[in-house]
Amino acid sequence: MREYEAESGVVYLVGSGPGDPGLLTVKARDLIESADLVMHDKLPGPDILGRIPTARKEDVGKRAHGERTPQSEINERLVAAARDGRSVVRLKGGDPFVFGRGGEEMEHLADHDVPFEVVPGVTSPVAAPGVVGIPATHREHASSVTFVTGHEDPTKPESTVDWAALAEAGGTIVVLMGVTRLPEYTAALRNAGMDPETPCALVERGTWPDQQVATGTLETIVEARDDVGIEPPAVTVIGGVAGLHETVRGSLR
Amino acid sequence: MREYEAESGVVYLVGSGPGDPGLLTVKARDLIESADLVMHDKLPGPDILGRIPTARKEDVGKRAHGERTPQSEINERLVAAARDGRSVVRLKGGDPFVFGRGGEEMEHLADHDVPFEVVPGVTSPVAAPGVVGIPATHREHASSVTFVTGHEDPTKPESTVDWAALAEAGGTIVVLMGVTRLPEYTAALRNAGMDPETPCALVERGTWPDQQVATGTLETIVEARDDVGIEPPAVTVIGGVAGLHETVRGSLR
Repeated sequence: MREYEAESGVVYLVGSGPGDPGLLTVKARDLIESADLVMHDKLPGPDILGRIPTARKEDVGKRAHGERTPQSEINERLVAAARDGRSVVRLKGGDPFVFGRGGEEMEHLADHDVPFEVVPGVTSPVAAPGVVGIPATHREHASSVTFVTGHEDPTKPESTVDWAALAEAGGTIVVLMGVTRLPEYTAALRNAGMDPETPCALVERGTWPDQQVATGTLETIVEARDDVGIEPPAVTVIGGVAGLHETVRGSLR
Repeated sequence: MREYEAESGVVYLVGSGPGDPGLLTVKARDLIESADLVMHDKLPGPDILGRIPTARKEDVGKRAHGERTPQSEINERLVAAARDGRSVVRLKGGDPFVFGRGGEEMEHLADHDVPFEVVPGVTSPVAAPGVVGIPATHREHASSVTFVTGHEDPTKPESTVDWAALAEAGGTIVVLMGVTRLPEYTAALRNAGMDPETPCALVERGTWPDQQVATGTLETIVEARDDVGIEPPAVTVIGGVAGLHETVRGSLR
């Protein structure tokens, strides 16, 4: 029994959550079931994408030869489908507005007078650490939390992330897309004066059946990554809260 | 038809999302329906709490005379209920680990060998701005986002939030519990060199039927707050993304 029905001519920017189908919202699940078209990339994961009939879904992620569909083409397809009178779910991993390019899609829809609705999702930088016992904030450890991407080289001048300021701010840092450049940004944080003993954790595919965790410190986490064999997609948690995984894991279900 | 059943003797730390029942996760909804006991405060909101039968719920928020139930008592009640063999949902607004004290509850459960599971929720600092067209991040505006609480006086030495470092970091800032002290921390950010023309928005009760929005800049947002009559609970968004609400609102459903 559905409570929500996707409406004709409307685009829904929907977050799928971190990958566990149980962490879809009720509204997201209903809209996915009822939409004429679900436009997605790979991030929602096989457990969620596998439940959508092939006839109603369109992969706008990787194309043949590893190319990505250009963002401008995704924008145009969304507008065209809505103008054809279809109800469209644009399904994105996590929350549609935490990294990814949901903001740009929204602006394009508004520029073309296409009605849209935003359906927030459970965001991975909170959920992936959360399910393994790492809280984003904690009164004894962190009074703020920052999400940042780790795919830029912090030693390059064009890097838009100010690691020194993040070290200074003193809250939990959660790095998305930060497996490969882990050595560079952990060094940048140490160079900015962050304690090398600061706890760190990597959570690969958090909430997926094959999730993996590696823990260490700002100094040892690169080695821990390699020992456990952490691969993308994963989030890196930096801060006192990252140490809680080892404390509580015995009681985690 | 339920996919998930709460198990006897287990505590589930569950996020209710920002308030719209459609933004409960499938798992949260099933666990709330099947648990022997739902321990909650006021934050999940009337639309969600109203659906839980009185016999199965226990309010551990405000007590008579405006007092709050002490955290130590909540911790003890969770352990006692689980040891009685009951299935317990500890229901928290938003995500259980973004502010609030889910981390401390988790540690207490682990200390007492009570099995627990974390069920992440849609977090309000992403969702409340999101549904009114304000993305947490955007390639043209912000490559990071920080959540921070605004209930401390930034001019006091015991303030744990380093507003100058946050201004320096340059990403989107989302302030929770920051309606009352808006004048103080917007001044702190301006004093730290943040452009007074930086867009700002306040979203009160985002995703609730009576949600309200006020927009302005780091210089004018206090006046906008008073003109619109924004009251807690609300989130404050500071950064270029906050300007997008006015750009897209005509197409927002």
